[in-house]
Amino acid sequence: MAKKQINVALIGFQFMGKAHSNAYRQVGHFFDLPVEPVMKVLVGRSEHKVKAAAENLGWQEHATSWEEVIQRNDIDLVDIGTPNDSHALISQAALKAGKHVLCEKPLAISVADAKASYDVAKQTGLVNGICHNYRKAPAIALAAQMVRDGKLGAIRHFRGTYLQDWILDPSVPLVWRLDKTIAGSGSHGDLNAHLIDTARFVMGAEFTEVIGLAETVIKKRPLLADTDGGLSGFKSSGEMGDVTVDDVTSFLARFNNGATATFEATRLAPGRKNYNRWEINGEKGSIAFNLERMNEIEIYLTDDPQGLQGFHTIQATENFMPYMEGYWPVAHIIGYEHTFINMMSDLFQAIGKGEQFSPDFEDGLKNQAVLEAVDKSVQSRQWERPLF
Amino acid sequence: MAKKQINVALIGFQFMGKAHSNAYRQVGHFFDLPVEPVMKVLVGRSEHKVKAAAENLGWQEHATSWEEVIQRNDIDLVDIGTPNDSHALISQAALKAGKHVLCEKPLAISVADAKASYDVAKQTGLVNGICHNYRKAPAIALAAQMVRDGKLGAIRHFRGTYLQDWILDPSVPLVWRLDKTIAGSGSHGDLNAHLIDTARFVMGAEFTEVIGLAETVIKKRPLLADTDGGLSGFKSSGEMGDVTVDDVTSFLARFNNGATATFEATRLAPGRKNYNRWEINGEKGSIAFNLERMNEIEIYLTDDPQGLQGFHTIQATENFMPYMEGYWPVAHIIGYEHTFINMMSDLFQAIGKGEQFSPDFEDGLKNQAVLEAVDKSVQSRQWERPLF
Amino acid sequence: MAKKQINVALIGFQFMGKAHSNAYRQVGHFFDLPVEPVMKVLVGRSEHKVKAAAENLGWQEHATSWEEVIQRNDIDLVDIGTPNDSHALISQAALKAGKHVLCEKPLAISVADAKASYDVAKQTGLVNGICHNYRKAPAIALAAQMVRDGKLGAIRHFRGTYLQDWILDPSVPLVWRLDKTIAGSGSHGDLNAHLIDTARFVMGAEFTEVIGLAETVIKKRPLLADTDGGLSGFKSSGEMGDVTVDDVTSFLARFNNGATATFEATRLAPGRKNYNRWEINGEKGSIAFNLERMNEIEIYLTDDPQGLQGFHTIQATENFMPYMEGYWPVAHIIGYEHTFINMMSDLFQAIGKGEQFSPDFEDGLKNQAVLEAVDKSVQSRQWERPLF
Amino acid sequence: MAKKQINVALIGFQFMGKAHSNAYRQVGHFFDLPVEPVMKVLVGRSEHKVKAAAENLGWQEHATSWEEVIQRNDIDLVDIGTPNDSHALISQAALKAGKHVLCEKPLAISVADAKASYDVAKQTGLVNGICHNYRKAPAIALAAQMVRDGKLGAIRHFRGTYLQDWILDPSVPLVWRLDKTIAGSGSHGDLNAHLIDTARFVMGAEFTEVIGLAETVIKKRPLLADTDGGLSGFKSSGEMGDVTVDDVTSFLARFNNGATATFEATRLAPGRKNYNRWEINGEKGSIAFNLERMNEIEIYLTDDPQGLQGFHTIQATENFMPYMEGYWPVAHIIGYEHTFINMMSDLFQAIGKGEQFSPDFEDGLKNQAVLEAVDKSVQSRQWERPLF
Repeated sequence: MAKKQINVALIGFQFMGKAHSNAYRQVGHFFDLPVEPVMKVLVGRSEHKVKAAAENLGWQEHATSWEEVIQRNDIDLVDIGTPNDSHALISQAALKAGKHVLCEKPLAISVADAKASYDVAKQTGLVNGICHNYRKAPAIALAAQMVRDGKLGAIRHFRGTYLQDWILDPSVPLVWRLDKTIAGSGSHGDLNAHLIDTARFVMGAEFTEVIGLAETVIKKRPLLADTDGGLSGFKSSGEMGDVTVDDVTSFLARFNNGATATFEATRLAPGRKNYNRWEINGEKGSIAFNLERMNEIEIYLTDDPQGLQGFHTIQATENFMPYMEGYWPVAHIIGYEHTFINMMSDLFQAIGKGEQFSPDFEDGLKNQAVLEAVDKSVQSRQWERPLF
Repeated sequence: MAKKQINVALIGFQFMGKAHSNAYRQVGHFFDLPVEPVMKVLVGRSEHKVKAAAENLGWQEHATSWEEVIQRNDIDLVDIGTPNDSHALISQAALKAGKHVLCEKPLAISVADAKASYDVAKQTGLVNGICHNYRKAPAIALAAQMVRDGKLGAIRHFRGTYLQDWILDPSVPLVWRLDKTIAGSGSHGDLNAHLIDTARFVMGAEFTEVIGLAETVIKKRPLLADTDGGLSGFKSSGEMGDVTVDDVTSFLARFNNGATATFEATRLAPGRKNYNRWEINGEKGSIAFNLERMNEIEIYLTDDPQGLQGFHTIQATENFMPYMEGYWPVAHIIGYEHTFINMMSDLFQAIGKGEQFSPDFEDGLKNQAVLEAVDKSVQSRQWERPLF
Repeated sequence: MAKKQINVALIGFQFMGKAHSNAYRQVGHFFDLPVEPVMKVLVGRSEHKVKAAAENLGWQEHATSWEEVIQRNDIDLVDIGTPNDSHALISQAALKAGKHVLCEKPLAISVADAKASYDVAKQTGLVNGICHNYRKAPAIALAAQMVRDGKLGAIRHFRGTYLQDWILDPSVPLVWRLDKTIAGSGSHGDLNAHLIDTARFVMGAEFTEVIGLAETVIKKRPLLADTDGGLSGFKSSGEMGDVTVDDVTSFLARFNNGATATFEATRLAPGRKNYNRWEINGEKGSIAFNLERMNEIEIYLTDDPQGLQGFHTIQATENFMPYMEGYWPVAHIIGYEHTFINMMSDLFQAIGKGEQFSPDFEDGLKNQAVLEAVDKSVQSRQWERPLF
Repeated sequence: MAKKQINVALIGFQFMGKAHSNAYRQVGHFFDLPVEPVMKVLVGRSEHKVKAAAENLGWQEHATSWEEVIQRNDIDLVDIGTPNDSHALISQAALKAGKHVLCEKPLAISVADAKASYDVAKQTGLVNGICHNYRKAPAIALAAQMVRDGKLGAIRHFRGTYLQDWILDPSVPLVWRLDKTIAGSGSHGDLNAHLIDTARFVMGAEFTEVIGLAETVIKKRPLLADTDGGLSGFKSSGEMGDVTVDDVTSFLARFNNGATATFEATRLAPGRKNYNRWEINGEKGSIAFNLERMNEIEIYLTDDPQGLQGFHTIQATENFMPYMEGYWPVAHIIGYEHTFINMMSDLFQAIGKGEQFSPDFEDGLKNQAVLEAVDKSVQSRQWERPLF
């Protein structure tokens, strides 16, 4: 018997659009899904660009009006990969139109908007997912599982840094990610959001209070002639504009499991390209991870015999590990894009089985609440609690 | 104007069949090809298995007779991913039938057979490729380019080890890779073949003489009930059979550029999962690589300023690097499978432009000649020259 | 002509006493000093213990009264390696007695006391040193030099963690380092003090404000029967006492060069044995260091040619590097103890040439002011400025 | 009761002389010895140089005639740190004069001479040691112990490389280490000798056959004006002379425990400063070591639980590990020089207890036999057995 088809509409075709498209193309080849994903329609504002993208990325159709597409009867799942400021609007409209929704992070650019999306999601009972794809890296899923299983005992510390250097050069222009009205925030929303999700996921705990600092180091940058906002092909028009987001945001945090934590996100760390590095310390062991070496995980356990205690560098590619059964032999590594493929597998499992996907809008809301509490603490210069 | 379609027939659907299929599916999404690959037909001996595989891997059709398929007028390219002993036969037949051929390594299980394939290829003038996919890892392509550009000066040393541990457990049964009549050799043909190709490719030099040792450490293993020969799902029938290939082969070598070298391949190195690690030392610098961290390359240059001399750990994922333009931002890593995607890009470039693909059957022949010279030296206990 | 002799009195013979004694024994054999150090007298409270220690560590004499020793005419330099609460008292008395002073960190257990010591030092004009020995690790001295020379441009970030796990086991008893009245603080004064000094030294900048969190995770520990307070040979008496210092202290900071920073010290990080790891990011490059691999330093420079940009792993043991001329050939590594030997070389250079040693009591005072501002911020839950 | 004094005469005061002197000065401060070493007399050819060295290195006396010194009644132990060609002569003379002998490697520059020294040593029954100091690195001692205890099961492979780059520059002059008549051989005797000893020590097995290649890449170098032969302060006189030793020697080997092995020593590997790296693979695990990070050891064990299998990076500085009890807390690392201090501890234990020191002249002889068999195989181009 043929599997039920799930028709997907993807809105947005830049970096995330490309990563999601790839995942839709690939997921059925590596995972045994209860339903069959169909790449129905790709949506973008520019007719000729979205047409070319749809062809290149493997979509059956293209369209320019997301408002129309989400109303189509033949669409089951709406995937939102647009710039941040439109996430809440599209999410809510799509849910109200009865579609399952997968929304790129952040859920919204304010807690109020995120809360509204969450409320809609809750009422509809549809699958509502937020794209924290790094949860789907096998190494991170493995870490979360170990903590859940008590292998590390009570967790005392989490420390995370997400360091990049792609805007180090002051001639990098004012792309949308540097514009607060569109992006919401800078390295904080872009990078700390990942760390916040990882901390919540791996520890299974919630933030109770935070205090942070933020800084815009390079205060003016060339205006973009082209308003596409792509991550590459920067072209400057000569005029300068104000950078309205943070280059760096660091913060301290406490969690409801008693753990203390430090976080830092910056895009001005020369040589750190995608250095999402975190470590947790528990009563009985530690786990460390670096996204630049995402197929490895380092684990230390106090119950190793004396003389053998040391961090184990584990190839997180054994086929008994999360998500790895259908790929390649051990240490024949997977890449960044596979975190999205794994995510889509979970998504279609959820849709097929009528279950909820994790992380969901509640996770998106809680993440946003932490981001906003940090922002607030930067202003108030005091500790703040995440509120929603 | 639509691109010319190139219809592909793939013979074999185990590990390599899966990797090649994935590459055919993906190559057009990441590279701008002069032709359009069409996944026409997948060929295998078992009707029901090949049918399921074709469906899962994305092939339009399936078939059980490679002899018939290579004669079809609508097939342009034959890709051979069967066990080693059939490579020569199928290659030659496909070339004679006027098809371009991509052959999994080794080209044959003897130099004589490899020479015959090479001779046929030379006469036909068709594209004839041998699958040394690691040449297509960006880091390795980069290394070869640096040597060609003279950045390291004259090369003095190459040292390569390819270590795995997947047959460490004596209960691993007699899969085809452990049967000399099918596989030709063990770790030598499987793993040293990669190192031999890398040494030739990166240095742009040829072996002049070799001497080796070989050992079958675990001499008997359980016979397989199931003759599929898959890499996983080992099931033992209770009876034991003789392992007829080497567990380890090491050798010394000299090259026509004056370099000396050491090589070692073993599948009995606990903890080494896919440890294809090599290093070259030249007059002016060194380069080191480890396949388990295939997105990195380590480079040392003597013309770095005093006090700054040290191995540079370079993320080999910058989009100006070989093959990387169409993938992801720097340090958003690619995986093992992408070496095949890159290879297919080169292949369709060659087919589209009427050029030869590299590495070709000459490379396959020379590789086989080195492998066989080592084998001969193991018997003769003397230095031997690669002959073909 | 014989060199002038400098007679040393060392007070304290535990861990630091041993490290300092070793340095006095060795410094003249590796460095060409303008004066000759003489290991005159070792001082401790317990007659029989100090006698044995003096013999073992190479001191000519032993004594039990530091008050008497600092008054001796034949003593030129007083080195203070006692528990923290006595540092200020002995420093001031020794300076007033006209002796040069080298004081183990911290300068005092309060800013007020540290200020008093600093004031006395300033009045006397004698050499007054504070033992931040890690400044004397060649790799760290090299880093500071590079920053001073502008190789990294303006510094934007410092991030430091000092992680250990030696009190992870709750059965580790209440040694003096866990008693606030003697130690002043826990991981904060013990470990963050090192990071604070390194940040000031490497960046050549001062802290302007800080905010921190602190936690005593393991609140009760066995009382020590033996009050020696040694780091090893823990013996429990059965009764429990309160831990009065922090297990972890983390804080955010801003500097007068515009840099932002994060700091974390904990002694509850399983597997981290002496993980004093820090990184700085500047306009033009980054430097990273890990004390567990103290003979290496990692440097990234944006002016490396395209394709060669990556962290250089540099053996910080070349003999043109700071302190390395008199030791061993490159990569014949030095150890922890050599940081003290290097420090003593600087100290006797200063004494011999009538110059000031660095770091001096001003550095000790500023360090203490940062530590105390962090403590205050933990109480006030607000940003605080270091005051003295 | 005072300990018995052991008066030492050290012959030679270059690099090894300095390392040995340091060890004599330090050993009593870190180890509890059954006897008391006394640094009696330092011997060298040049009166003024040996006088200065004796003073600097801490010797009571100096002398210029080793022949006279070894006859002195007040000398108990003769330590030989001269260039290689004099080792056999002095060793035999000292033993015949009734002195314990510690001889720098190699025991001689031919097997015949080494055999003669061994025979003398055997007859006299005195302590006769050969300085393979790396056996005394805690990590290596630990590895040997694990193999002895069966933790790795039967050993299948050893692979060792010892790579340096100090003579990469063709302007490095003809120091004694590049002169066959004095040094015996080049990288082979200097570096492979260490690997050979490590293989024998760690595996507890003997070489049965070898085959090698050797090459002198840089065939002429500037003659030294100054004949001191020091490792630093190269000064060229303008004239060129022939390099008579190998720059690189690689070889394959088989052992009497069934293991196969590869070895490579070169001093032309840019960026490798002291890269003595080896790995062993056994039935049940692997151990890897790199001298540039000599305080760490990497261990993989197949009996780790599924999901936790990976190389453990172990700080080989725990105070329950070999030699570490008397040094510093864990991860407060030791350096190159401590391998000599540890060696002297073993030596004085042996002398004090009337036992034999290990490695002894038999180890030196066997080492020399392997070196020579490799040399012979380079000439004969055939496998050779170590003979003595």
